[in-house]
Amino acid sequence: MLNLNYPFFAGLLLTLCAAATAAEKPQNFTRADLSAASTLRERALADTTAFALVESLTTEVGPRPAGSPGDKAAVAWALREMQRLGFANVRTLEAVVPHWERGEAEFQVLSPYPQAMPTLALGGSVGTGQSGIEGDGVMVKDLDALAALPPGAVKDKIVFFSNRMERTRDGAGYGKAVVVRASGATAAAALGATAIVIRSISTSDSRFPHTGALRYTNAAPRIPALAISNPDADALARQFESGQPVRLKLKSSSRDLPAMRSANVIGEIPGTDRADEIVILGAHLDSWDPGVGAIDDGAGVALMMGVAKLIRELDLKPRRTIRVVLFANEEFGTSGSQAYLAANEAEASHHVLGFEADFGAGPVWRLSSRVNPQQLPVVDQIFRALAPLKLQRGDNEARGGADLDGLGKLGMPILSPDLDGTNYFDVHHTANDTLAQVDPQALRQSLAAFATAVWLGAQYSGSWERVTTAKPPRR
Amino acid sequence: MLNLNYPFFAGLLLTLCAAATAAEKPQNFTRADLSAASTLRERALADTTAFALVESLTTEVGPRPAGSPGDKAAVAWALREMQRLGFANVRTLEAVVPHWERGEAEFQVLSPYPQAMPTLALGGSVGTGQSGIEGDGVMVKDLDALAALPPGAVKDKIVFFSNRMERTRDGAGYGKAVVVRASGATAAAALGATAIVIRSISTSDSRFPHTGALRYTNAAPRIPALAISNPDADALARQFESGQPVRLKLKSSSRDLPAMRSANVIGEIPGTDRADEIVILGAHLDSWDPGVGAIDDGAGVALMMGVAKLIRELDLKPRRTIRVVLFANEEFGTSGSQAYLAANEAEASHHVLGFEADFGAGPVWRLSSRVNPQQLPVVDQIFRALAPLKLQRGDNEARGGADLDGLGKLGMPILSPDLDGTNYFDVHHTANDTLAQVDPQALRQSLAAFATAVWLGAQYSGSWERVTTAKPPRR
Repeated sequence: MLNLNYPFFAGLLLTLCAAATAAEKPQNFTRADLSAASTLRERALADTTAFALVESLTTEVGPRPAGSPGDKAAVAWALREMQRLGFANVRTLEAVVPHWERGEAEFQVLSPYPQAMPTLALGGSVGTGQSGIEGDGVMVKDLDALAALPPGAVKDKIVFFSNRMERTRDGAGYGKAVVVRASGATAAAALGATAIVIRSISTSDSRFPHTGALRYTNAAPRIPALAISNPDADALARQFESGQPVRLKLKSSSRDLPAMRSANVIGEIPGTDRADEIVILGAHLDSWDPGVGAIDDGAGVALMMGVAKLIRELDLKPRRTIRVVLFANEEFGTSGSQAYLAANEAEASHHVLGFEADFGAGPVWRLSSRVNPQQLPVVDQIFRALAPLKLQRGDNEARGGADLDGLGKLGMPILSPDLDGTNYFDVHHTANDTLAQVDPQALRQSLAAFATAVWLGAQYSGSWERVTTAKPPRR
Repeated sequence: MLNLNYPFFAGLLLTLCAAATAAEKPQNFTRADLSAASTLRERALADTTAFALVESLTTEVGPRPAGSPGDKAAVAWALREMQRLGFANVRTLEAVVPHWERGEAEFQVLSPYPQAMPTLALGGSVGTGQSGIEGDGVMVKDLDALAALPPGAVKDKIVFFSNRMERTRDGAGYGKAVVVRASGATAAAALGATAIVIRSISTSDSRFPHTGALRYTNAAPRIPALAISNPDADALARQFESGQPVRLKLKSSSRDLPAMRSANVIGEIPGTDRADEIVILGAHLDSWDPGVGAIDDGAGVALMMGVAKLIRELDLKPRRTIRVVLFANEEFGTSGSQAYLAANEAEASHHVLGFEADFGAGPVWRLSSRVNPQQLPVVDQIFRALAPLKLQRGDNEARGGADLDGLGKLGMPILSPDLDGTNYFDVHHTANDTLAQVDPQALRQSLAAFATAVWLGAQYSGSWERVTTAKPPRR
């Protein structure tokens, strides 16, 4: 019933709220809190902490895929940096992580026009054995096109998925395209294919293949799966379009090794009168291996640590506890955030508000949320505090990132300063994910947006209510 | 003496020429020639031949470094395409080319912060042997900084050259920076270094190392030489700037193999009343191996072939013979153009005008020249025929490319529709040199500029005089 009346209530509340603002009588935040928000915002715009953190993480640790030496080094780095920044209750929370080793991969067109193309194995994919796999190629656009082929069409063949993802600001193009990476191998194997090659889930015209995790199911044998860059996928498509038979060869020495122990790294700015209510700030410490994880997710790590550092330096203490959680192993199945959820099961409802930064280095262009609809006026007030950053006002369908998915499903409200993803998929999961992709100014603007919203989220005079509507599927 | 009087004569001629134009009485070109130039220019702006040729060359042949199977395939491709386009006297002219094999290369920082970085061996560099080379690193900016070190400073060490090239439209930044790639290994070896690593001669922030030829001399032992990308060079510089000792390791299986036979490929549009005068259109058929040679120099090949094809399709025949020469092995010492020069020694003076396209896929932004100063008014008239393309008027110090260097030194005039090189060094000599880097519209505009200038160069009513001033050093 409440849902049916929502537009009426929301309209009423917005009107009341606007009136309150006009009269300069904010009801949800004290003048001191709003003033502190302004200070935070302005300080953040001049603060170099976040950039320095990404620089340090990428230079001193670099690639840090789950189970690797870099993974261990990243945990040590995060502990050291959180302590240096003066966070309280700095600690680790163990997580078991898969340990997949990339090895080397090769991809060649043997005919009609012999060419080798740079390639990356998809994360979790099986190897080909020493002699590789050779076979006739079949080009299909996507899973639907594969399913529409006549029976036997890909039996003993290598399937090339040619679909190109669409560039969008909010990442919607990724959600549509990535299903081929996740499920293409099993779908093709179920029809008898021996291997797959996908056009990278990428918006770039540069010759970087993109990796990323696949998901085998028990529905079919595990077959090797590689990705090639957009320009190579174009060139391969032209070979198919020549009308001549296309013969392919691929090799990969990828393999699974025994699972390892890694850890989430946690630090806090303790709250005061509502200290048992947690505002959680999530990002992930692991990265893919070909790059150094600057935008995925060094920037997110730096933003979350930077926010807590700025708030700590304020004279005022936050009412609620601000907890930064740098999750282990987001990329390979989110076992880090699952471990967090399991360890905090009893206190899940104490997580009253969540923020996650896992979509690059900014700028922030929009404020979205997923709050109980009755509290949208609070979000509107926070939005007004962000006015100098010139954001758009998003909807209440924020999905959050992968690591807060579990808490979100349990009803935790989410505030989402949305990072601009227009160019994110040019770089993510490639060797090109380096510090050069981080624009210091965009990062500072993002820091300002997060710091302001986190602070006000921690100071809200009411109680953040649980969200009872179904959580939209995450991208 | 003539040189001393040049400003006077040039001024006088410019004045006369301007007067002639004002009176619409061009003295150097017939109305029919100028009208044909307009037709050519307009047809070129709508012509897809050049793009189709780059697409075909990169798709069907791909990488074609000297001595490789791709080199041979490129010769066959060029013969086939010249015949298909209806050129006359299509033939090959043999050239001996070096055969260097890249093998595999690895580069790692061992301490203070262990990281592997993508690398490419410099062309012609020696390998390291199976166990690689490990040593302490010394960072210097450039050759001057190396020379200024105290004695013994790089003995048994690995030298890292950190200088970054400057982005310019005309490629001037390359000339300044590339000396480290050419001579760094020998300079460091002469001081006792065991290997060098250079920051790629590149303007890009993407993580592509750039290869390119080095030149060993007998002044010092041949030591391995690798290049890393700009973002990695920045990261390595930060490791040095940490103040801690930097330990490096590199491996390369590069090696020289016996020289091979390759060929220049030649085709013509025969002249009429001045058929024994040759207007030569040069580009190079070979490419570096990591990419598919779309901008270096597939685009040049396509432009030169496209120009001849457009002129052939005109009703009017050119007065002078237009000869397209696709040179073998520009990248590895220009043995193709040297073979051409040797074979044409007796007829060198018949080469009355040269054009070369070896600087990417356009657009053309300027018309430069290297003609006898008395003939600058002819260049001015050609420039006016290019007016709709909105070019700038360059100077008379055009250097031309590497393959016409020999003929230029013998006094052959050069007309240079200058290709815009602002982004050229983002891509050249990298794996990213693919068709995606070719903008079809810029290529058509370049085709229009070249076609117009070549046509008028072939129709000029006077005689192209030899250039007696010293040729400026090429970049």
